[in-house]
Amino acid sequence: MTRHHFQPTQYSNVIGTLPAVLEIASGDSVVTTTLDAAGVGHDGGQKAPRGNPMTGPFFVTGAEPGDALLVTIERMTPNRGTGWTYSPLAPGVLDPAALADLPKRERYEWAIDATAGTVKLLDPSPRIKEWSFPLEPMLGCFGVAPERGQAISTATSGPYGGNMDYRFFGPGATIAFPVFAAGALFFLGDGHACQGDGEIAGTGVETSFEVEFRVELRKQQGLRWPRCETATDLLVIAAGRPLDQPLQFATTEMLRWIQADLGVDAVEASHLLGQAVRYDIANVFNPAYCVACRLEKTEITRAMSLRGKG
Amino acid sequence: MTRHHFQPTQYSNVIGTLPAVLEIASGDSVVTTTLDAAGVGHDGGQKAPRGNPMTGPFFVTGAEPGDALLVTIERMTPNRGTGWTYSPLAPGVLDPAALADLPKRERYEWAIDATAGTVKLLDPSPRIKEWSFPLEPMLGCFGVAPERGQAISTATSGPYGGNMDYRFFGPGATIAFPVFAAGALFFLGDGHACQGDGEIAGTGVETSFEVEFRVELRKQQGLRWPRCETATDLLVIAAGRPLDQPLQFATTEMLRWIQADLGVDAVEASHLLGQAVRYDIANVFNPAYCVACRLEKTEITRAMSLRGKG
Amino acid sequence: MTRHHFQPTQYSNVIGTLPAVLEIASGDSVVTTTLDAAGVGHDGGQKAPRGNPMTGPFFVTGAEPGDALLVTIERMTPNRGTGWTYSPLAPGVLDPAALADLPKRERYEWAIDATAGTVKLLDPSPRIKEWSFPLEPMLGCFGVAPERGQAISTATSGPYGGNMDYRFFGPGATIAFPVFAAGALFFLGDGHACQGDGEIAGTGVETSFEVEFRVELRKQQGLRWPRCETATDLLVIAAGRPLDQPLQFATTEMLRWIQADLGVDAVEASHLLGQAVRYDIANVFNPAYCVACRLEKTEITRAMSLRGKG
Amino acid sequence: MTRHHFQPTQYSNVIGTLPAVLEIASGDSVVTTTLDAAGVGHDGGQKAPRGNPMTGPFFVTGAEPGDALLVTIERMTPNRGTGWTYSPLAPGVLDPAALADLPKRERYEWAIDATAGTVKLLDPSPRIKEWSFPLEPMLGCFGVAPERGQAISTATSGPYGGNMDYRFFGPGATIAFPVFAAGALFFLGDGHACQGDGEIAGTGVETSFEVEFRVELRKQQGLRWPRCETATDLLVIAAGRPLDQPLQFATTEMLRWIQADLGVDAVEASHLLGQAVRYDIANVFNPAYCVACRLEKTEITRAMSLRGKG
Repeated sequence: MTRHHFQPTQYSNVIGTLPAVLEIASGDSVVTTTLDAAGVGHDGGQKAPRGNPMTGPFFVTGAEPGDALLVTIERMTPNRGTGWTYSPLAPGVLDPAALADLPKRERYEWAIDATAGTVKLLDPSPRIKEWSFPLEPMLGCFGVAPERGQAISTATSGPYGGNMDYRFFGPGATIAFPVFAAGALFFLGDGHACQGDGEIAGTGVETSFEVEFRVELRKQQGLRWPRCETATDLLVIAAGRPLDQPLQFATTEMLRWIQADLGVDAVEASHLLGQAVRYDIANVFNPAYCVACRLEKTEITRAMSLRGKG
Repeated sequence: MTRHHFQPTQYSNVIGTLPAVLEIASGDSVVTTTLDAAGVGHDGGQKAPRGNPMTGPFFVTGAEPGDALLVTIERMTPNRGTGWTYSPLAPGVLDPAALADLPKRERYEWAIDATAGTVKLLDPSPRIKEWSFPLEPMLGCFGVAPERGQAISTATSGPYGGNMDYRFFGPGATIAFPVFAAGALFFLGDGHACQGDGEIAGTGVETSFEVEFRVELRKQQGLRWPRCETATDLLVIAAGRPLDQPLQFATTEMLRWIQADLGVDAVEASHLLGQAVRYDIANVFNPAYCVACRLEKTEITRAMSLRGKG
Repeated sequence: MTRHHFQPTQYSNVIGTLPAVLEIASGDSVVTTTLDAAGVGHDGGQKAPRGNPMTGPFFVTGAEPGDALLVTIERMTPNRGTGWTYSPLAPGVLDPAALADLPKRERYEWAIDATAGTVKLLDPSPRIKEWSFPLEPMLGCFGVAPERGQAISTATSGPYGGNMDYRFFGPGATIAFPVFAAGALFFLGDGHACQGDGEIAGTGVETSFEVEFRVELRKQQGLRWPRCETATDLLVIAAGRPLDQPLQFATTEMLRWIQADLGVDAVEASHLLGQAVRYDIANVFNPAYCVACRLEKTEITRAMSLRGKG
Repeated sequence: MTRHHFQPTQYSNVIGTLPAVLEIASGDSVVTTTLDAAGVGHDGGQKAPRGNPMTGPFFVTGAEPGDALLVTIERMTPNRGTGWTYSPLAPGVLDPAALADLPKRERYEWAIDATAGTVKLLDPSPRIKEWSFPLEPMLGCFGVAPERGQAISTATSGPYGGNMDYRFFGPGATIAFPVFAAGALFFLGDGHACQGDGEIAGTGVETSFEVEFRVELRKQQGLRWPRCETATDLLVIAAGRPLDQPLQFATTEMLRWIQADLGVDAVEASHLLGQAVRYDIANVFNPAYCVACRLEKTEITRAMSLRGKG
């Protein structure tokens, strides 16, 4: 149950089977830092090439293909006072016929006030100078080495996690990743101070963070996509295009989870989903879109867990 | 401000420019009944062919193309004690590779207890006999005559409304439809006792209702898709396939709404949406899928209204 | 076997159950005229509102739901010397990120030389003044009244046909439509002097025509989508979005056709399709995209016919 | 202009920045062999894990990011007498509602007769015993190392090529790949004896080959997707999902190509595409679907070339 402090000195713009920066054990936690999506750290300096440079990978002792690596985001503290976004919205989220009227996409700077818990545009026009959004940190891109020795750009996502850009992945969330490589090889980065559904501006409020996370290993869980538990919800996230596809993948995996943990058949699990399912569009911007299939925790779902039935 | 009581004697399986069953004025309310999606009413008798038979159309005095017809769902009271669903899930919401393993889709009956506010499966297996879902009535299919004299099946949806199957369209919601035909010609039906996101079983808990609604006419609003206000949220709903398309349409219309009502430009409106937007997948089952682009009401959105700036 | 001459005096912008303009018998042919997509006829005058106004409907004696109406396009003669297109390409066929750089879409005029068999831009720049395309007439929009008494805009398409914009639907092609209404109610219009795959400019070279077609009725064929036979090919066309969906529908219907007419099972039919299928993207512009699933005629397919096994 | 003979002893199931097996120069040709998609070679022995194991990579002297690597498929000779497919069709190409009726997908064996130029099922039922398909060899999966040091599964495809499964990529075709890594690093494998459009059975007739290819380097061409020239056609291929997306990418790149090589503007290039474009659905089975945007060679296109304007 060691609490490691790890200061990164190199970063990776792919998630893959790379040399580990630190070996940790199931139960351990790590305090470390992440760069913003452009490779800029707490001091405003460029530390790595743009495109979601990752901290890691962390090798988890004993992790093997078929296992689940549970990662709890214990804390995310912005370590500088500003972040940035792009505006207006990404072209892919608007009616193609409406795009001719939009101004050019440009970068905007935001003030992050961790004490007040607010995120506010720097240099707003008078008409929006009162606009303030709650600070709700989340990790945009994190996951484990994918199958078959692949090394995949941090622009995209898959069963191994990656650039999911989902606003539920903040402090308090535990995410279970399917393990594909020895040691799991966990990467993290691309923190957002806040973000709406879909990451439709193509960014959250992008900034650097101090992050504390804890890992737990569960043997041979047979996950096909990442699962997550928060204080209030249970969910599966999946990736693909168009949005219909990650919805299909996430729903199929949630059906498996319900059947396994509640001991019901496909018809009964469908009754539950049909009446109670919630879907979140995590991102509709990246090369692979992400959709979460979510159930609020109720009496019905109380036997469902990331830790399986064993 | 008349309160009409209207007992339907005929129904329509298309939404279009049909003879009105009643003429009403802006400000009036109507108490009427709706059949379930299979055409069955409060007494269990088949009153119309299956496929979302509609009550109406109601001709609203003075409504003209370009206007907005605001419909407030005042009340939905189930008028029988049972509903039905299909299970397992619809094939389109699952990984195509997983479909071979599923049992055949069949109809299941549910008990609706309006006093207790619950919906429970009739004849559940012992392992799910405690499962209970909250009664949360909603209208699955309603809207106004579409443009160009079309008459469109109640299976699908479009800018005129139709089979949107969105769980936010329950008591307390006000929906503003763009008017395309003289008198607007409002239709309603296909009530659900409850339904998860996406209508992924292909049904909510389908039943018949007594419904009270009120209409209000607003001249020349230029809506392109239905807008809605609830106690807590403002939203636009749109239809198309794949899910990416209604998301694009709804986001584009929400951007127009924000710019018009808040007096901001496209970049500023994008800041708001980028940090605060919520998306709901209303249905991912019908020929046209529906997605809602939603903002929770906050200080920022307080000048937004279905009633425009006039 | 009557050869009718029909001069239209009214047109329809929906395809639906409307009063017939002429009753014809199986085996009859009709010589008539069609307006261009903007409602302009042979003399340059606007005869009907824009949006694919249709000639018809023609009531076919004895046609009943479940039958197939075979329509052979015998001849299409442009009846004026000009047509028009839009340019540049429609926004939906380009990378959304590339749209900002494109000029505004505008209308362009073309010269149609029926004797030379060419289509050439009027007023080309010197660098393209030699460009000439072959005159290859086709009907963009035609079909029969859809199911359930619907009346659907000629902008879109479905199992009943409609705005399919497929370049194979020219002289010599026989198209078999599923009949949904008594008399079938056949409509036609929206002729193109030529068009590439996908109608990616949002138009072919749009012009008015004299058209001769012949109908044949086949009882109770159980078609789910239009089928077509040309001198060289057999094909099914279907409509939906995204392109994946009409491909699924057309492939499924082709699988049924092969199994029925060749007397093979699904595995054997799949061997044929897997090695020999051709797909055409008919249009990727209209509200419903269209894809054709096509087989070139070979020894293997010689028992396949629009006329069924009876 | 060396003609290398290279006998592979190891294979890769990813395409990425891996150690080269041979260095070759622009203008050189290579005679080598490829395994089938399951890793089986000419003698029926399993030489590598299943999933399109690649021969290569070949390092091309002087190739740098931004260059184009032109690969001409000079010859493909099947080096064993059998191949295999799966049947029935892949679930993703059929209407989801139709999947319940299909038999389980199983492997089937085929006889390849290189002398007769035919491909025939082994052990056909009497009703299809005459079925024969022409031997039309093609490379299913080939390409160069992708950008940013990625190593990507040979299941999928992207701007670097990969598992495109396009039937035009056979002997006589020259494919130009954008170079992302020093030496380009060319991989090849996954040959098919024949295949219809879309690879809708999930396979072509999969077999092993002796392949001869020739490379040519062109400096700084700025390609964004692979381009190809055959005896009769010019085309761009792109990858993504749904089919709409690779169509968008390929059309956008073709528009660039036309403008650059014909010296015309976007409106003029759109006239050409609008009247003359052809689309091929290369595969609609792999994680990324592929669509080709194609122009038949005519007088209009005679100045278009893979070798640029320089």
